[in-house]
Amino acid sequence: MEQLHNLETPALLLERARMDYNILRMQTQVASLGCRLRPHVKTSKSLPVVQAQIDAGAQAITVSTLKEAEQFFEAGVQDILYAVAIAPNKLAHALRLGARGCRLSVIVDSVAAAHAVVRACASADAGEMLPTLIEIDSDGHRSGVRPADPVLLDIGRVLDAAGLLAGVMTHAGSSYDLDTPQALAAMAAQERDAVLACAQALREAGLPCERVSVGSTPTALSATDLTGVTEVRAGVYVFFDLVMAGIGVCGVDDIALSVLTSVIGHRPDKGWLIVDAGWMAMSRDRGTQKQKIDHGYGLICDVDGAPITELWMSGANQEHGIVSLRAGAPASDLAGRYPIGSLLRVLPNHACATGAQFDTYRVIEGNRIVATWPRFSGW
Amino acid sequence: MEQLHNLETPALLLERARMDYNILRMQTQVASLGCRLRPHVKTSKSLPVVQAQIDAGAQAITVSTLKEAEQFFEAGVQDILYAVAIAPNKLAHALRLGARGCRLSVIVDSVAAAHAVVRACASADAGEMLPTLIEIDSDGHRSGVRPADPVLLDIGRVLDAAGLLAGVMTHAGSSYDLDTPQALAAMAAQERDAVLACAQALREAGLPCERVSVGSTPTALSATDLTGVTEVRAGVYVFFDLVMAGIGVCGVDDIALSVLTSVIGHRPDKGWLIVDAGWMAMSRDRGTQKQKIDHGYGLICDVDGAPITELWMSGANQEHGIVSLRAGAPASDLAGRYPIGSLLRVLPNHACATGAQFDTYRVIEGNRIVATWPRFSGW
Repeated sequence: MEQLHNLETPALLLERARMDYNILRMQTQVASLGCRLRPHVKTSKSLPVVQAQIDAGAQAITVSTLKEAEQFFEAGVQDILYAVAIAPNKLAHALRLGARGCRLSVIVDSVAAAHAVVRACASADAGEMLPTLIEIDSDGHRSGVRPADPVLLDIGRVLDAAGLLAGVMTHAGSSYDLDTPQALAAMAAQERDAVLACAQALREAGLPCERVSVGSTPTALSATDLTGVTEVRAGVYVFFDLVMAGIGVCGVDDIALSVLTSVIGHRPDKGWLIVDAGWMAMSRDRGTQKQKIDHGYGLICDVDGAPITELWMSGANQEHGIVSLRAGAPASDLAGRYPIGSLLRVLPNHACATGAQFDTYRVIEGNRIVATWPRFSGW
Repeated sequence: MEQLHNLETPALLLERARMDYNILRMQTQVASLGCRLRPHVKTSKSLPVVQAQIDAGAQAITVSTLKEAEQFFEAGVQDILYAVAIAPNKLAHALRLGARGCRLSVIVDSVAAAHAVVRACASADAGEMLPTLIEIDSDGHRSGVRPADPVLLDIGRVLDAAGLLAGVMTHAGSSYDLDTPQALAAMAAQERDAVLACAQALREAGLPCERVSVGSTPTALSATDLTGVTEVRAGVYVFFDLVMAGIGVCGVDDIALSVLTSVIGHRPDKGWLIVDAGWMAMSRDRGTQKQKIDHGYGLICDVDGAPITELWMSGANQEHGIVSLRAGAPASDLAGRYPIGSLLRVLPNHACATGAQFDTYRVIEGNRIVATWPRFSGW
């Protein structure tokens, strides 16, 4: 077996045991609420990871790009939700997937986009359909129809007339700004209530609403009652990250992804270690900046994955990371402790962003590399 | 010819004419100073772009990863400087490139790293050498030996004893924090003076110092006298970006790279357009945040590339960009002006970071796509 010490750095490490535990935890949670789990695969973009989610019980997936839909459909996944309001220039591609047998559903939050989907399906050669969900804004965070907006029924009627209305969906993205169990549980209830209200409004207007879909990792793990909801979407739970630890839905020791890096320089005059993981490896995501603990570009661990809590990645250039003592940490001979060539591991702020910088996961058990899994990127 | 309106979004556009002009401008500037230009290819990671730089007169390149060295050596580039202090775990890879005929040089800024290079070369099967430059810290920005530090001569002696000492190099990265011609010219002089002092110290100690290398795009374009310097490195000038425009070394209309995106939603209650270029397309780079004009995640242009100065990308999620009116802009019916499916172009804060999110450049002349160029990423 290859050892970490034989890798060129930076390299993306994935702790299999942690990932498996995270998958089991979410699958169990969502099943206990009586819903189907539809994992969002934008986090991993890797077939072996998604296969592990399917093996644990997931029967469908959520994607953020048609490339993800394409890749996972070719690998055998049939039921796919593209969870970004579809641009008209993507409809032909979506219909090609449908013509090949993919059960691809899409979302819209406007009458204009609904008409575009209806027109595209009407002109499809083989009579393909794109079952369409109406996106609901449950928290003022981003996109979607506000629950009380009468446009909901206008969109519903346009879709239903073409036999395309499949349901409603929402994503409580503002759950990322919370950090107490009480606030998270309340947001999960708010997310649920928003889609349930819309589902009811559609049904009262005589429109069908088979699917009622919610989800974000924080709300999925904080929900206690999802009666009326049919499916839960969540993505980042598969790896977790420092942002999720700051929100409080995982511990730092649940984070399955890290970047292996080498010490390449010392600046004792500044109290710095220089490492060969910069923002190209970590991504520019600074998602913990507004949380109680700002981890800079990542939390530094030793090569075995144990956090070195007095250090943080305080700065980053393209291929250089600057590792410093945290404010208040006792003075330390960093150059002596971490000579040139020392290996460190860096836990990411945001697993989706850091993962996207690499084309390979090095799957590890302890310090042994047990597999190499490809991941793709792009559109 | 394919038109922009036929592309799926998001897509990375490259205006060929602007790139050619930027290449010519830098080549002319550096030649006028009597130096060789060694373009940093980390910006493009694309052979046709580098070929255009070579066609304009560049005879050597700078890389930020050994993958870049590998790819461009295989494409015929012989003289390559890997400009990140080399980690010991990369030396075997570097020597394999050397064994295949690549004239790869490396950098170090410590005695320990110098010893590692010497040891690796001594044990190389075919007697390969890695000519080594000592990295100098000319501005307190990141890595390197401070000019007055006696360790300079210690490193020089270790390398020279093995016949590996090739010269000195520096990168005045703090030029990115400046925005007046006077300050930039002063930083260019400071960058030059730091390496010249070190070159002189080495020579006075009887050590060779053939190569004297400086560079950053802002200092390269602001230098007026580089007597004693042998080569200039610069990268981002090939495309330019909003950070460079904020520094003042280019205009917004010199920026050759943009992301084509579609309007996928409206939130009139919030004054938002939602587009399908989020941070996965733009990158998380917020390099203009500390400049006089904060462009958020990018400057919005119409499909022909004309800036719409009252708009900016004020927020971004993975595949969603939030486009808002700037503070003080008159109220405007954005939904009416930019219906679902409207195409916009977004100029990036940082071309290196945005480019890295894509695997293809769509090369355009006007609104016609005249070529598709691949780019690679990773390590």
